[in-house]
Amino acid sequence: MIKTSLSLLLVLVAASFTFAKYTPKTGKRVPQTLSRGWGDQLIWAQTYEEGLYWARSRNKPLMVLFHLDDCPHSQALKKAFAEDNELQKILDEDFVVLNLVYETTDKHLSPDGQYVPRIIFVDPSMTVRADVTGRYANRMYAYEPNDVKLLISNMKKARKLLKSEL
Amino acid sequence: MIKTSLSLLLVLVAASFTFAKYTPKTGKRVPQTLSRGWGDQLIWAQTYEEGLYWARSRNKPLMVLFHLDDCPHSQALKKAFAEDNELQKILDEDFVVLNLVYETTDKHLSPDGQYVPRIIFVDPSMTVRADVTGRYANRMYAYEPNDVKLLISNMKKARKLLKSEL
Repeated sequence: MIKTSLSLLLVLVAASFTFAKYTPKTGKRVPQTLSRGWGDQLIWAQTYEEGLYWARSRNKPLMVLFHLDDCPHSQALKKAFAEDNELQKILDEDFVVLNLVYETTDKHLSPDGQYVPRIIFVDPSMTVRADVTGRYANRMYAYEPNDVKLLISNMKKARKLLKSEL
Repeated sequence: MIKTSLSLLLVLVAASFTFAKYTPKTGKRVPQTLSRGWGDQLIWAQTYEEGLYWARSRNKPLMVLFHLDDCPHSQALKKAFAEDNELQKILDEDFVVLNLVYETTDKHLSPDGQYVPRIIFVDPSMTVRADVTGRYANRMYAYEPNDVKLLISNMKKARKLLKSEL
């Protein structure tokens, strides 16, 4: 019995050496996710270029979501956004999704300024859907946690592609 | 005892309802990480814009690593790269890191073409270090798994900032 335990111990020690990975001085970190908490089950584009390419090639609208980790409005919206199954399902099936904590060089993504949280839709024809707006006149692309139903209805609007409207 | 088990079952059922999250038709997915396997302990920039901003503000060189999930050369390099603790430590402490599966609009990041795997260093002065090259004349910024030591020595070269060389 003691022999078995010792062998097991040796195997465990060997295994831990084999898999010893770099650990920062400040301790082990949790790997960062591309979802950043906005929906772990969605397939997120990493960059705007990637999002645009997917939108064009899959003929699906792109949702670009600007947010910041240290912004309480972003965090509150994130919770409502991630927990709404209807929203997550539509995004998963009918949209290309991208969340950014950094502005891009494309000025079209900030029609009325750079603020967070801000949600902009881009048609697969590469047209920014500046007409799909929330309920706030001074920050037209902002949404609050209570606006999830409005956001879903805007997603349905964005889903009607511009080309098919012609 | 049966009562206890029942209560526990009820708690478990309740908990599973409370945390019921959207699940895609194809089954639960593993959240995507920003490291994509190149070093889960590193803090990866999401986009080139973000990487450039961090490089400038922290006065650290940026390493941009182009790769593809379905490229066997990328996968082989990834393994050697992620498992080398010296490399990971230097990157963590002295570099800003960005890995991309998508090309950017900046032509300076492809001095001799767009291929993968490809590693380009950018100085905090925003200068692409086209002088920091690997060992292959036809693909000057490519590295193979056996080139990790060369890569580390190139990182040390890139760490000597251009400004301090003046």
